[in-house]
Amino acid sequence: MATKRLSLVVSHRAVLVRPRRRFVSAMATQKPNSGPDFSKNGGLVAAIAQDAATGEVLMMAYMNAEAYAETLATGQAVYFSRSRNRLWRKGEESGHVQRVREVYVDCDGDAVLLKVEQVGGAACHTGFRTCFFRQVTPEGLKVVGQRVFNPEEVYRRGPSSPT
Amino acid sequence: MATKRLSLVVSHRAVLVRPRRRFVSAMATQKPNSGPDFSKNGGLVAAIAQDAATGEVLMMAYMNAEAYAETLATGQAVYFSRSRNRLWRKGEESGHVQRVREVYVDCDGDAVLLKVEQVGGAACHTGFRTCFFRQVTPEGLKVVGQRVFNPEEVYRRGPSSPT
Repeated sequence: MATKRLSLVVSHRAVLVRPRRRFVSAMATQKPNSGPDFSKNGGLVAAIAQDAATGEVLMMAYMNAEAYAETLATGQAVYFSRSRNRLWRKGEESGHVQRVREVYVDCDGDAVLLKVEQVGGAACHTGFRTCFFRQVTPEGLKVVGQRVFNPEEVYRRGPSSPT
Repeated sequence: MATKRLSLVVSHRAVLVRPRRRFVSAMATQKPNSGPDFSKNGGLVAAIAQDAATGEVLMMAYMNAEAYAETLATGQAVYFSRSRNRLWRKGEESGHVQRVREVYVDCDGDAVLLKVEQVGGAACHTGFRTCFFRQVTPEGLKVVGQRVFNPEEVYRRGPSSPT
């Protein structure tokens, strides 16, 4: 598969202070059918984050149109938290942001795939590299993932799943 | 990440004729909290299929409890088609089944990751290797994926997205 890099990369500081104009204007000039289809499923599309370097699937969440637009504009992953009913800027509390390298849209437009650089080395709020750290075995679920941080030390209000 | 292989592999013929008893009984003896949580989201969990050999994310769909149980029992991916409102045995028409090598459950139990061998080389009903064959660029969506088959030749009734 071709992996031409989308020049979405901006520094953490730049993202928080001011999104780069180029990506905002690129979004604004896109045709209506040039992105995901937010007209179904309550305005949400599924969003899969995959480690751009290792190919590991890190997490799965949802985006609304605003989250998707902000992701493209800033180059950092923004999801929509169904449990909190608001935008969820990944890493907003932990600092473990996801720098988005490439974005793909699936055949029917209801899912996107983000290839990301995971700052801090762990995508999961439990401290594991990936949210998919439990494998199904005939004996039940077995933890096979690698724990990178202690969530009690990272989250002031304790970890909770925002998906 | 550890990649201990789940011995889920069965031949195509064996699956269609009779699921191997060992996996059915393994499911039956699992504890209630040893798998995905089907109590939320209308009984559905998100299911991501990833190529076990290349790491490529192939598709994203949904499973209900019955689809998940049948997937484990047969070793072939079974989803729940929201548009058709019934079980969707991947490859039932095209023959392009997914042989499931490993299954992972995410932190809050509302998504599963399948590592699969994609028979026929293409997961997407459009004939592309992956459903994520369109990349977002500043100029709009660009087809970057590899087309493996012509859907008009594979589907008798024409291709349609079952997700």
